[in-house]
Amino acid sequence: MASSRILIIGGTGSIGRYVAKASIANGHPTFVLVRDSTASNPEKAQLLESFKASGITLLHGSLDNYASLLEAIKLVDVVICTVGAAQIADQFNIISTIKEVGSIKRFLPSEFGNVVEKEIGLDPVKSMYQLKAKVRRTIEAEGIPHTYISSNYFAGHFIPSLGQSGLTAPPRDKVVILGDGNAKAVFVVEEDVATYTIKAVNDPRTLNKILYMRLPANTLSVNELVGLWENKIGKTLDKLYVPEEQVIKSIQDTQDFLLSLYHSTFVQGNQTNFEIGANGVEATQLYPEVKYTTVDEYLNQFV
Amino acid sequence: MASSRILIIGGTGSIGRYVAKASIANGHPTFVLVRDSTASNPEKAQLLESFKASGITLLHGSLDNYASLLEAIKLVDVVICTVGAAQIADQFNIISTIKEVGSIKRFLPSEFGNVVEKEIGLDPVKSMYQLKAKVRRTIEAEGIPHTYISSNYFAGHFIPSLGQSGLTAPPRDKVVILGDGNAKAVFVVEEDVATYTIKAVNDPRTLNKILYMRLPANTLSVNELVGLWENKIGKTLDKLYVPEEQVIKSIQDTQDFLLSLYHSTFVQGNQTNFEIGANGVEATQLYPEVKYTTVDEYLNQFV
Repeated sequence: MASSRILIIGGTGSIGRYVAKASIANGHPTFVLVRDSTASNPEKAQLLESFKASGITLLHGSLDNYASLLEAIKLVDVVICTVGAAQIADQFNIISTIKEVGSIKRFLPSEFGNVVEKEIGLDPVKSMYQLKAKVRRTIEAEGIPHTYISSNYFAGHFIPSLGQSGLTAPPRDKVVILGDGNAKAVFVVEEDVATYTIKAVNDPRTLNKILYMRLPANTLSVNELVGLWENKIGKTLDKLYVPEEQVIKSIQDTQDFLLSLYHSTFVQGNQTNFEIGANGVEATQLYPEVKYTTVDEYLNQFV
Repeated sequence: MASSRILIIGGTGSIGRYVAKASIANGHPTFVLVRDSTASNPEKAQLLESFKASGITLLHGSLDNYASLLEAIKLVDVVICTVGAAQIADQFNIISTIKEVGSIKRFLPSEFGNVVEKEIGLDPVKSMYQLKAKVRRTIEAEGIPHTYISSNYFAGHFIPSLGQSGLTAPPRDKVVILGDGNAKAVFVVEEDVATYTIKAVNDPRTLNKILYMRLPANTLSVNELVGLWENKIGKTLDKLYVPEEQVIKSIQDTQDFLLSLYHSTFVQGNQTNFEIGANGVEATQLYPEVKYTTVDEYLNQFV
């Protein structure tokens, strides 16, 4: 495929860094918009150094600085936004700037998560879905060529805890399972999210479509995920199942974001409980050549 | 101060990597126990490369491989364990091996969190506190020279979300505050946790003591933390206060780990609601030369 000039907004974030690296590694002239190219945070400074070493061009600017955004967007063919939850609404600035520039061949707004089209889930996650859906409707109303990346769960965020909050490695004694643990979710390693995303940017099959990632080996219920882990450590965990009505009551009482996200995916099954329609394509079907990391392989690092 | 030979167990984890880098940067011959020195995960592989480049020696082994643990511990004067929540119980293996070797001058078990001595908090976090307390009692019963690092909250985990679950950057519209938001917690940037930890390893003042990190500028209530953020973005957030009884009910219903941790610290105030006793010392008092990163500075990266 031909190379595109790609701008990544949010390129130092938890998924953006992988997208930026995949972009330059695949030969696309790659630009990352950064507020401060001499970050005081040592980890971030190291990341920016590795960007520069790999040939990525750092552009000084930010979402709320119109002139910087305009200048950056004028330089490229493709804009990929990877900002986090707190900045989803700022994307309306990007849309109006892309409209003004008029030459962008593809815009990928910051989705990188779950299905947002349907009226699903409970607040607070429901409001986030609605905001992302509103971003989609605005892109379409402006006639901007686009691809929506529906990548489901980042492995790094959701596998280590086996679907619980606050753990960075899988538990070895007991596990809390929301609902009956049978709804299936999809887990995708960050590098693979980035690989599929970069393959999509100038693929005519993904133009104005939703790219769903439904990796067959990584489409698992929490019960199955826990079972994989139990096999690895040769031990059966105690399981506490929390009835859905208790989960719902707690979400309503505490407005806990993560709990509402877990409920939507691990209890309601909103990542997998629908057929992909005419407006969607599936990543492993479009790109069967990608050897993705399986959940089973991913879990080995924690044994 | 003289240099010590330091072994870090859990050195590739979220705090261990900073401790390992601080150790070698301060001139201590540094060893990290790793299960697999050729990690398939690219991020981890990069971390291991940076360890080697900085002069850290990688030792092949793991907590559940007795021979490897014995061999590693024989090489050093100081053992620092930084394993995560799921492996706290495995530290009894380290204790018995240290006892057997007999020459370790200081052991720092994996604490790097909150106060664990008192009967505080609700399950599931309460069980974790009790397990860490049991590790302490075992170390003392075996007569192993030790320092307990009570570093309170890692900035990277707890500041970006302003004390909520599932967010990686501070919210810009509304914030959920558990309880009345007035209990004070302490936030310490990971690099500073590591700096204080390495200063403590051969300091006679920290021998058989708890090293508390109570950084004056970083001891803040959630209300104060939100206020700092509001000042930075020039906007007042909507605040939803969740009464403590609702928080408690939700913890009991869902056994949500993070919620029980937040309740212990942000509602009950268990990081700061006591005086440091004769068995404790405070990091900024022992090491006033350390210029720690303030929460206020840390928040700048998200503006």
